[in-house]
Amino acid sequence: MASKTSLSGFPEWLPQERLVELHVLDTLRKTFELHGFSSIETRAVETVDQLLRKGEIDKEVYAVTRLQEDEEAAASAKEGRLALHFDLTVPFARYVVENAGHLTFPFRRYQIQKVWRGERPQEGRAREFTQADIDVVGDGTLPFRYDVELALVMIDALSGLPIPDFKLRVNNRKLAEGFYRGIGLTDAPAVLREIDKLEKIGPDAVAANLQENVGATAEQARSALELAAIRSEDTSFAEQVRALGVSDELLDEGLAELTAVMAECVHRAPGAVVADLSIARGLDYYTGTVYETVLVGHEKLGSICSGGRYESLASSGKRTYPGVGLSIGVTRLVSRILSQGLAVPSRAVPTAVLISLVDEDSWSAAQDVAAQLRSRGIACEVSASAAKFGKQIRYADRRGIPYVWFSSVAEDGTVVHEVKDIRSGEQAPADPATWTPPQEDLTVSVGTPGN
Amino acid sequence: MASKTSLSGFPEWLPQERLVELHVLDTLRKTFELHGFSSIETRAVETVDQLLRKGEIDKEVYAVTRLQEDEEAAASAKEGRLALHFDLTVPFARYVVENAGHLTFPFRRYQIQKVWRGERPQEGRAREFTQADIDVVGDGTLPFRYDVELALVMIDALSGLPIPDFKLRVNNRKLAEGFYRGIGLTDAPAVLREIDKLEKIGPDAVAANLQENVGATAEQARSALELAAIRSEDTSFAEQVRALGVSDELLDEGLAELTAVMAECVHRAPGAVVADLSIARGLDYYTGTVYETVLVGHEKLGSICSGGRYESLASSGKRTYPGVGLSIGVTRLVSRILSQGLAVPSRAVPTAVLISLVDEDSWSAAQDVAAQLRSRGIACEVSASAAKFGKQIRYADRRGIPYVWFSSVAEDGTVVHEVKDIRSGEQAPADPATWTPPQEDLTVSVGTPGN
Repeated sequence: MASKTSLSGFPEWLPQERLVELHVLDTLRKTFELHGFSSIETRAVETVDQLLRKGEIDKEVYAVTRLQEDEEAAASAKEGRLALHFDLTVPFARYVVENAGHLTFPFRRYQIQKVWRGERPQEGRAREFTQADIDVVGDGTLPFRYDVELALVMIDALSGLPIPDFKLRVNNRKLAEGFYRGIGLTDAPAVLREIDKLEKIGPDAVAANLQENVGATAEQARSALELAAIRSEDTSFAEQVRALGVSDELLDEGLAELTAVMAECVHRAPGAVVADLSIARGLDYYTGTVYETVLVGHEKLGSICSGGRYESLASSGKRTYPGVGLSIGVTRLVSRILSQGLAVPSRAVPTAVLISLVDEDSWSAAQDVAAQLRSRGIACEVSASAAKFGKQIRYADRRGIPYVWFSSVAEDGTVVHEVKDIRSGEQAPADPATWTPPQEDLTVSVGTPGN
Repeated sequence: MASKTSLSGFPEWLPQERLVELHVLDTLRKTFELHGFSSIETRAVETVDQLLRKGEIDKEVYAVTRLQEDEEAAASAKEGRLALHFDLTVPFARYVVENAGHLTFPFRRYQIQKVWRGERPQEGRAREFTQADIDVVGDGTLPFRYDVELALVMIDALSGLPIPDFKLRVNNRKLAEGFYRGIGLTDAPAVLREIDKLEKIGPDAVAANLQENVGATAEQARSALELAAIRSEDTSFAEQVRALGVSDELLDEGLAELTAVMAECVHRAPGAVVADLSIARGLDYYTGTVYETVLVGHEKLGSICSGGRYESLASSGKRTYPGVGLSIGVTRLVSRILSQGLAVPSRAVPTAVLISLVDEDSWSAAQDVAAQLRSRGIACEVSASAAKFGKQIRYADRRGIPYVWFSSVAEDGTVVHEVKDIRSGEQAPADPATWTPPQEDLTVSVGTPGN
């Protein structure tokens, strides 16, 4: 039961769907913090200049202007034209440069925020969506080891989510570029651009394009495609590359790096990772390890977690900030979880107990009971009016509240408290100072249906 | 040490400042959920038509357009022009109407999101800021009792925050309008508009304006100002109003409502609430109880939590949705907490333990130790290189990590683990399967400085 969206590309969730999203967000946050990542947020807007520096996706950017501001005033504004950020990497780079004096490097941060892109909406692609990013950024240098670590962190994070099995696909730019150079193709970005189309147009068309657009010989094109065809769920990809008989220093470096990533990931999460030498991931950003992730059985959804190593996330004067990072497409994941019913909340509302009213004068006493329960972490609400008990119980039932509390004054003047589990109908005396529901009813949990 | 803001009105926090903001957000969320409020989020954009229906703040709205879209295409777009929401009430009203069939009424929701206003930035007023709203909305009717309950929820929420004492100021529109009618002033909104300026321009100027702009007699103006001068921290305001000798049915209703709010709030939170009959709060929105909140000693900051009762939050065909709600200005609060140092995090990063490396080959073993600690909720990170221990300790110190873990292989081949509290210098043997830091070091806590 997905909420209907009144504006295409801007998904909104019903309260019970939001519980699933909150579970995903909470799980990610907890994992990132357990791995020592600090939270930051950046403003939603950047200057257009800043956003378009990479020069590739200007069509997707949403500009922001004050409604009553005339165009000229906007154009001449000191800070320049503003637009909504389309990812969290560009804003993070700016943040690092601006706050470098206050940060400790290597700086480990996570950032979970909405981003906006004016793309045509389609399944798995919204105009407003949430990303969850982790990056480690160094000042001047950053050990390669972080490339291994960040893969492990994301495997840990994704493993905690109510999603199908996933495959983290890893490749290495140095490996690819070194190989291309080794076979005499020196314009590596151009080759990668063609290889990137492999899944879409197939190897024959890519071979033709390599010859036509990059000036490759038939032999070179064949070699490049042989490299891109290599896959392994362990470190055996390296032998397969060696068997192609190409030698190059950068290739060696890339092979060593990818081997290190694979060895550690296979050790810790066998089956979750695959060396896939066809992965290209965008164009000029990345300089070493590249990652993308698919859900097994949902490959058409596209990557749900991507990233890589960049030798210069940002630079300021003589300082450069190399980094490695990955970004989870939270909205893409949550949309799929919801549309396929992969996870459901244990109840629809946070409330565990409805404190019913025996008469209109008992509202304040009912608030006393509620306060006692809340002090022990039990979420509750008080009936707004002393309707018949049957009606109050039906209200709880309609809302999905599992327990109803009854208080009444006995003939001897003492107050009698009882609590009813409206699912089983069982009702028993209860003390507001000590009663607690079973652990599974204390707070909302989110799990696979039937569990 | 506030992060310098490179774009005026768009505050950003340093990682250790963000910990304070997260603490505020977590506390609010927890309190709202304990009171049975469901989380929702709405998209950041609304149609301009929707946003400007109330017709008052068009100058403050940020319009959103695709950068490459021409003006004509934008204007003729099916969905109309888009703009960023400037509060969470207008989007919530739309959400309720759109999803009414999927919601259970009275619907209790909290919503914590960024909003944007193109106002001139100044202390306590940003262009991008976070609001935390709670509302209860009924279908057709909503018992008055929720006006009392929502005041209690917000008192509970604010009491959990690291802020100075606050005063929740409450008034009632029916009381004011009934009183004005009773003295012969029938244009209540016009009178309220003048009374609203009381704090800014003083009673003499307001009296003059009432006569000039609203056509009041000197006597009527005097009466209206007498009403606005009434304050009480209990229910005695009612007698003071009665003593003014005005009688009107709506006035009686308003007096009864405000008395009910005050009686329950004084009972539960003596000193936190004041009946303040000068409170006007905006113009056409509210129809009964109105609330605003100031921090004692920080009154110039303005209200940090405001709201009220509205008989028609939204309507659709014959259905109307009355509600009552309050909104906390989270960014305003957090800015003040940070600029005055009212609260500090117990450490600057989530990491509790740095797992050091004895040599480069021990990284994978160090990850094993880290995984064991994380499984018990202990946040840790592993050194990226086997630098000298002194250097690894200095790194932890610089980051604010309290513990450093050492593992080494003894002569007999067994692995020896030790953990050092780098604040005290104490070092002791530790078992990765059982060691846990003291509770106060397990996670970051946020409290008043010195505690």
